[in-house]
Amino acid sequence: MLKFNPNTALALGARMRDHEWGIVITNLNAQILHQINVPITDGTPETAVKALKQGVATLKSQVGRQKILPAIGLGTPGLVDMHAGVIKTAVDVSWFDVPFREMVEASLGMKAFVTNRSKVGALAELWHGANQGIKELIYVSIGTGVAAGIIHEGKLFMGANSSAGELGHVTILPDGPLCPCGNKGCLQQLVSGVAIANRAREKLRQSDDTILHALIGTHPERITADVVFQAAEQGDSLAKEIIDETAMYLGIALANVVNLFNPELIVLGGPVGQKGEILLEPLQAEVRRRAMAYPLSATRIITTVLGPNAGTVGAATLVLQRASDLLFERT
Amino acid sequence: MLKFNPNTALALGARMRDHEWGIVITNLNAQILHQINVPITDGTPETAVKALKQGVATLKSQVGRQKILPAIGLGTPGLVDMHAGVIKTAVDVSWFDVPFREMVEASLGMKAFVTNRSKVGALAELWHGANQGIKELIYVSIGTGVAAGIIHEGKLFMGANSSAGELGHVTILPDGPLCPCGNKGCLQQLVSGVAIANRAREKLRQSDDTILHALIGTHPERITADVVFQAAEQGDSLAKEIIDETAMYLGIALANVVNLFNPELIVLGGPVGQKGEILLEPLQAEVRRRAMAYPLSATRIITTVLGPNAGTVGAATLVLQRASDLLFERT
Repeated sequence: MLKFNPNTALALGARMRDHEWGIVITNLNAQILHQINVPITDGTPETAVKALKQGVATLKSQVGRQKILPAIGLGTPGLVDMHAGVIKTAVDVSWFDVPFREMVEASLGMKAFVTNRSKVGALAELWHGANQGIKELIYVSIGTGVAAGIIHEGKLFMGANSSAGELGHVTILPDGPLCPCGNKGCLQQLVSGVAIANRAREKLRQSDDTILHALIGTHPERITADVVFQAAEQGDSLAKEIIDETAMYLGIALANVVNLFNPELIVLGGPVGQKGEILLEPLQAEVRRRAMAYPLSATRIITTVLGPNAGTVGAATLVLQRASDLLFERT
Repeated sequence: MLKFNPNTALALGARMRDHEWGIVITNLNAQILHQINVPITDGTPETAVKALKQGVATLKSQVGRQKILPAIGLGTPGLVDMHAGVIKTAVDVSWFDVPFREMVEASLGMKAFVTNRSKVGALAELWHGANQGIKELIYVSIGTGVAAGIIHEGKLFMGANSSAGELGHVTILPDGPLCPCGNKGCLQQLVSGVAIANRAREKLRQSDDTILHALIGTHPERITADVVFQAAEQGDSLAKEIIDETAMYLGIALANVVNLFNPELIVLGGPVGQKGEILLEPLQAEVRRRAMAYPLSATRIITTVLGPNAGTVGAATLVLQRASDLLFERT
């Protein structure tokens, strides 16, 4: 009897986040077989490519005789011109007009497919999450940056120059804090990991009644979103207040997403997005207060089931989508 | 020589707005041959159907021996379940769960296709505007209500239950005025014709230095958006201030649309949207201040070239899309 063997070929995928690559080798079913995290020491494109090359070499050495498809999928920060493989603008890492595909192909000696990391996250949720049969899905990644990958009729929604989904830069407070993008009151300035930590720092100056002091000692610089979530999980009311504010801002944005895109499913991912109930519960309440009832009746909001692997698996998916071409290409 | 004759069959389309039907008969090229406006006296669904029937009869009597396709396309207010032909919720006219397709088909004795009026407006701009070759287009209709019709890859973006595009209910001011939808600070509460008139009324109480007083006499109830635009065109600074505020709020929403959908073209229509430069110029300035530069580089914002006919022509398009089925259907 003939049976599909998903291990006849393997795919490489890498996701860049917070000066670090997560790199995976998956089988044809997008199951992770090997993985590694590699730091990007100084955050420049050149260093990022070097770190990627080194990580891929290490991973490859762990693979036996199985064929690795001669390509790599990349989920990067920023606005990516997918057609040209150029990162047009990635504010978080201060990269502008970086011909990243060309750099990776030259260094690694294989084809590269470059897409924004939230877009590949959406692909991962569509293909490999618990979301079979869903055609209208929006993956929202919240960490250092905030962005959405939009799936419409089962395909990535790219827009005129492949930059649709910049949810982190929608205006939530018209007179809010200035954003590096030039706008005021962007969602990203209110709900990113950095924004959560900054808000905690501000509130800490005015309150002694919080276990945050115990968690960070006299080192306000040590506050991170993780620490705030940890304190909130332990019942700290100041930390809970910060999470609730975050949920409120995010709820405004997601209610807008419901009214505009009428999705079946919104999946939250990224370091902040995947925190679970403590964020999800007040967030869903805010969305219910703001979204129109009819479109909302079609929408569920959940936390990623792929966790930190959404980006890496989604990046590998860019290769898997082209697997047959890559396997049978003449060389 | 054989040549396509666009007048071999005709299509019926009707758009409902502000207690009035605009009804047209077009040829197969969607050129309007006959048109009529019919008031809907008390604004109930039953009266609306009666007025529609009467208007269609009048129009048909103007047609000679040409074949009229046995169907009518309808652009209505509100959230429409296109599959069932039910108007789920139309806040402006207080219609809820109205089986409108069924009612029209029973009364007019022909097939009916029911869609939100902004969605049919988008179809009209795509098919019959000056926008050949455009695949990513967003039509924004601003009048009593505010909504968007989204074209993606040349097709209407419907969403999970055909309610995508509710731009009028995105949150612009989180603590802004209460909207009948239950949310606070909805775009519609800030830029609709009613909102513009209300803001003018408010400012009029505090200022004598405006020609608005001369235009309306001692009758503040006579202020409409049209009067405000008229005063602004004549250089009245108070009226200009109101239009600029309107442009600012609308600019926040359209910058979000640019960041989320990355369209090639945004077309403004509806009684307020089609006012032209006096609104468009401050609006474009606000969008430039707020939208991300890269997606914005792909976007133009213009005023409808179809004017008040966008809705009616788009409604007829619903029939024209099915013309061959309707012409060759067995009866």
